[in-house]
Amino acid sequence: MPTEKLLELIEKTLDELLPPASARPAKLSEAMRHAVGSGGKRIRPLICMASAIAAGGAPEDARYAAAAIELLHNYTLVHDDLPAMDNDTMRRGKPTVWAKFGEADAILAGDALQALAFAAAAKSPRNAARIVAELAARAVGVVQGQVEDIAREAADAAADIPFIYEHKTADLFIAAAVMGGLAAGAGDAALGALREAALSLGLAFQYEDDLIDGDSPYEAGKTRKLVDTLTKRALAALSRLPGDASILEGLAAKLAGRKS
Amino acid sequence: MPTEKLLELIEKTLDELLPPASARPAKLSEAMRHAVGSGGKRIRPLICMASAIAAGGAPEDARYAAAAIELLHNYTLVHDDLPAMDNDTMRRGKPTVWAKFGEADAILAGDALQALAFAAAAKSPRNAARIVAELAARAVGVVQGQVEDIAREAADAAADIPFIYEHKTADLFIAAAVMGGLAAGAGDAALGALREAALSLGLAFQYEDDLIDGDSPYEAGKTRKLVDTLTKRALAALSRLPGDASILEGLAAKLAGRKS
Repeated sequence: MPTEKLLELIEKTLDELLPPASARPAKLSEAMRHAVGSGGKRIRPLICMASAIAAGGAPEDARYAAAAIELLHNYTLVHDDLPAMDNDTMRRGKPTVWAKFGEADAILAGDALQALAFAAAAKSPRNAARIVAELAARAVGVVQGQVEDIAREAADAAADIPFIYEHKTADLFIAAAVMGGLAAGAGDAALGALREAALSLGLAFQYEDDLIDGDSPYEAGKTRKLVDTLTKRALAALSRLPGDASILEGLAAKLAGRKS
Repeated sequence: MPTEKLLELIEKTLDELLPPASARPAKLSEAMRHAVGSGGKRIRPLICMASAIAAGGAPEDARYAAAAIELLHNYTLVHDDLPAMDNDTMRRGKPTVWAKFGEADAILAGDALQALAFAAAAKSPRNAARIVAELAARAVGVVQGQVEDIAREAADAAADIPFIYEHKTADLFIAAAVMGGLAAGAGDAALGALREAALSLGLAFQYEDDLIDGDSPYEAGKTRKLVDTLTKRALAALSRLPGDASILEGLAAKLAGRKS
């Protein structure tokens, strides 16, 4: 299935899960839909579906898991943007949720998106409880990374970058891949390969982000080398999967060379 | 099993689930444990375990579901207390999470508690996916009630009190009861009776709260009558359950006559 078809399935599933405009209170539905938007890159749900394929399954197996990871990712963005956190008023060229709907409703919309992520995960036709457990564990991990990151910024201290990047960024990549594998009924070996690939991919993504932002914790040459090493490590793990890993391989190459 | 034994099992399970003091970052673990506290009334997890018993099961069946509902309830309190929401600095005689740990970490500790609630729910040995789905649906409901309540306060308008109370308060009572029933393997008839009883109990609890706070939306005599009617309705639903509903009956009587 070409990537555009996967993206269509992701958008359709998100639309099916999000409260309709008619749901009460209308303001909450609007804020949730504003947060999730449409037509984004949807990297994490793509990884989820591509992982189901690489594990020998079909992307449809993972459509609820994929929507779950995107909903969860978007709740973290809504809360990250809050005045008490990054205090950002714009995201993806639009006002952030708090800038548009107010602080209280942004906190609440984020909360509802997290709950909806678990509602989506529980809908998986296969391995639903294990998928929820994976998502929940990584959702706690993301917060651990975020708290550590804030502490670092406040103290301006020598930071434990690997801990922060593993949890703040890579944890949701790992959840995406493992949930996709579980949705396709993957065994332990395939799940292990997916976890390893996603960890490397997630770290590479974050270091690449730093390079794009000119905000790298290390000297640029060293960071570039790290991205290359991590991408190679991801590809090696992907080669151990039983199914067609070409979409994941393509994503790995694209993430390492992206410009935004 | 006497109520004190149920409370012990609840505290033990919460302690097992919450990150240990040694977990990184220590501040997050502390904030989460501060939020959940210990020795509270634990009404919702008691309802959950008592519902498992009333459905013919054992309280141990529902220990993870019970912990899940308490974790979820406590995340809502952490976020409700925030400056952008109720701006409360004290709760249960202790500083609120944001007053003690700062606003950003309070938002994040609440987020982690919600994720941990779903991790707990997914651990249920029986019907885990349905338990997660019930918790997720009601967790969205709580936010709907809260957004509507804030809109009401801001507009100072004639409020849709039943909508707000059903979602803001009763939804977590319903989740507690239904999750307990599911954990005990209850059939549809018992689940329906539990849902009905918990809705009435939750509404009675909220109206009673209003009477205690002297902040009733209706004239006090009318509110008192409502509490009585709802309590009777709850008891009638409980009488349809196959197991021993005496703990739930005792809770219903206690909630309707409490002083704090």
